[in-house]
Amino acid sequence: MGEAALAAGWFADIRAMSRDAEGVSRPAFSEVETKILAHLAEMAQALGLTCAHDAGQNLLISLPEDADATQFVLIGSHVDSVPMGGNYDGLAGVLAGLMCLARARANGLRFSRPVKVIAMRGEESAWFGPCYIGSKALMGQLSPEELTAPHKGDGRSLAEHMTDVGLDTRPVEAGQPLMATDAILEYIELHIEQGPLLIGKKAPAAVVSAIRGNLRHKSIRCIGEAGHSGAVPRAFRKDPVLAMAELLTRLDESWLTILQKGDDLVLTSGVVATDPARHAMSRIADEVMFSLDIRSQSAEVLAAMEELLAEEMARIARRRGVRFVCAPPNRTAPGQMDARLVAELEAAMGRLDMAPVTMASGGGHDAAVFANAGVPAAMIFVRNRNGSHNPDEAMEIEDFLAGSAILYDHLMHRSPSPGGKDRT
Amino acid sequence: MGEAALAAGWFADIRAMSRDAEGVSRPAFSEVETKILAHLAEMAQALGLTCAHDAGQNLLISLPEDADATQFVLIGSHVDSVPMGGNYDGLAGVLAGLMCLARARANGLRFSRPVKVIAMRGEESAWFGPCYIGSKALMGQLSPEELTAPHKGDGRSLAEHMTDVGLDTRPVEAGQPLMATDAILEYIELHIEQGPLLIGKKAPAAVVSAIRGNLRHKSIRCIGEAGHSGAVPRAFRKDPVLAMAELLTRLDESWLTILQKGDDLVLTSGVVATDPARHAMSRIADEVMFSLDIRSQSAEVLAAMEELLAEEMARIARRRGVRFVCAPPNRTAPGQMDARLVAELEAAMGRLDMAPVTMASGGGHDAAVFANAGVPAAMIFVRNRNGSHNPDEAMEIEDFLAGSAILYDHLMHRSPSPGGKDRT
Repeated sequence: MGEAALAAGWFADIRAMSRDAEGVSRPAFSEVETKILAHLAEMAQALGLTCAHDAGQNLLISLPEDADATQFVLIGSHVDSVPMGGNYDGLAGVLAGLMCLARARANGLRFSRPVKVIAMRGEESAWFGPCYIGSKALMGQLSPEELTAPHKGDGRSLAEHMTDVGLDTRPVEAGQPLMATDAILEYIELHIEQGPLLIGKKAPAAVVSAIRGNLRHKSIRCIGEAGHSGAVPRAFRKDPVLAMAELLTRLDESWLTILQKGDDLVLTSGVVATDPARHAMSRIADEVMFSLDIRSQSAEVLAAMEELLAEEMARIARRRGVRFVCAPPNRTAPGQMDARLVAELEAAMGRLDMAPVTMASGGGHDAAVFANAGVPAAMIFVRNRNGSHNPDEAMEIEDFLAGSAILYDHLMHRSPSPGGKDRT
Repeated sequence: MGEAALAAGWFADIRAMSRDAEGVSRPAFSEVETKILAHLAEMAQALGLTCAHDAGQNLLISLPEDADATQFVLIGSHVDSVPMGGNYDGLAGVLAGLMCLARARANGLRFSRPVKVIAMRGEESAWFGPCYIGSKALMGQLSPEELTAPHKGDGRSLAEHMTDVGLDTRPVEAGQPLMATDAILEYIELHIEQGPLLIGKKAPAAVVSAIRGNLRHKSIRCIGEAGHSGAVPRAFRKDPVLAMAELLTRLDESWLTILQKGDDLVLTSGVVATDPARHAMSRIADEVMFSLDIRSQSAEVLAAMEELLAEEMARIARRRGVRFVCAPPNRTAPGQMDARLVAELEAAMGRLDMAPVTMASGGGHDAAVFANAGVPAAMIFVRNRNGSHNPDEAMEIEDFLAGSAILYDHLMHRSPSPGGKDRT
């Protein structure tokens, strides 16, 4: 069987295991996720590969000869998905690693350094709120607040769901890394691009130079005062909807200014809602809630936006007689990819006669967690139509193989450093 | 029994007949409404007054000696309420009329001209969509679309519900007035104020000089394109939420300009919502819906706002790559109160040593329908806390009596014109 047919079959089987009303649903730290890890282990064993589980109940796959390596290049991504999401977000990175192992095994080759492929759990924030749960647990960075975050469906805590899948949460609670960071020579993650740039550039793949960090408010409430839509003059109004509109418009204007200065920023209010139980066309709303997701490659820009947001909220609140109420934002630091590793992946693209494309990642990824824990990390993006987190994700198998080829070439090419460990 | 205790008892009895989970619910053209009209008729008969029903199945009450008058001053309001509404919106105007009749009867006096008090059905738009149903039917102005409007609960048409309460809908369908407009010398409606002005002015009552008309969009959809909140650069975005925010902010700015020019306007977007089934913090929304309720005493201002809205939607759609989709707006013409009648009611306030307060009505009222049908009409507003259409409406009985006193004084004072009919 050719690699294209092999890969297509892998994706199809896992899609079938996790099909939902629309697209696929693979909840974080769920039985579905466990079942998919078991399925991957079976596939790997059938290919003559060796499997193990780490203390985070993630699956590790390697060539048999690399199974006991104490230092290794870690290749992987996550297997969970958002509800009614697409089949490629996360899974493509795991299967790209598996494809490299399968190809090495089929060719009877070893990598220049030991390689382990990791199929991680729980990256998506859709289930509990926090994101990168699996990689944060590995790096000992899951906070007590995150561990007690309730599941959006059953309300039980993340820690309980972790226990359900056989994870001993005590070291996680103690902030102990479940995998030694100095065991990881490099972390490389292949992922579908979640934006439209590679489609626009007509390029199958790219190397990622940085991962945008974010500043997120799941819910900001703007509280004003209800009133009759016709009977309350402007001067007496405390209209939260117009206050929210002004805030978003001011942020939008600042966004433009920041881009014009050459800085990086994206800004989204994806959820906006007055209360369906109380709102009406002829009633000034007493309250409106909205979300904010602000992202940048620059920690300075994120800090400046946090300050601007606070100032604008205070100014608008004062002027309009409303109150903005919100919990402290979730903050994720931007992840800088390792410059040497980025250059090496670009070199691999060159050896494969692919035009080198390097770009920032707008979406957050486990790679940022490894990078911020001090592991040299990088990513490969694969062209994908229709974004991610929806059933219409459309990655061509040909592009998947092109991305995997970059990975394979890099893993084969590089000569190991004399002392094993070789950080820049 | 003093008038205060009498009135308080009347309000309490009818509240008890229409209590809901919160506040009161008196659906338009319902059995509850019929029961309340029957209760009012009993009360009136016990006071020695005469009752009849008009062809709209509204209740008419008068002194026995005025029962057969062919021309009369019509005093009244509606008895229906919004769901979980307050006890005073509408009902206060009916009971104020009844109080005038009771007082005249108790004093053995006649009014300067014949007076009929009307307790109307179906003014609130909450049940079927159209508003002023009872008065429009009386004036022969209910449209075929309005007659087929479905009830928000059972989905059956307004015409069917009218038939249920014994109304012969054939003349209504034919656009025939159920009450001759030239029989009505004047229409005067007492109503609770639905805004905060009288509270602010520390005045118990006011004369209304005009009723704001409106331009209403129950639902405008702004359609953009979904995408990953982090991965889509600004230039590739079609974000409907920011487009809506810009539109509302532009309208808000124009509002301020219009007020500064001395024109009258209020503007409300009471309902705003992304789709709960699809929205997420980390997803650019594909669509947002919002309502618009724009009101003014000036038909010109409403026409100008309609034009501005269309221009701004076109401009923003072009610039942001979104589409605004909406049905044609509902339009209600402003109602000008009769200048001579307004002056006479102001004079009555003066005779009662009340500081004359004259104001516009922001809410729509049956009085606008009579005014636009050519009947000299005016309104008296009574101070009320907490707006209307909610269980917290708070009218003091003392203020109700002050408003009723204006009405009574006017009805007693005016000498009838020689020819009976006396339009300006």
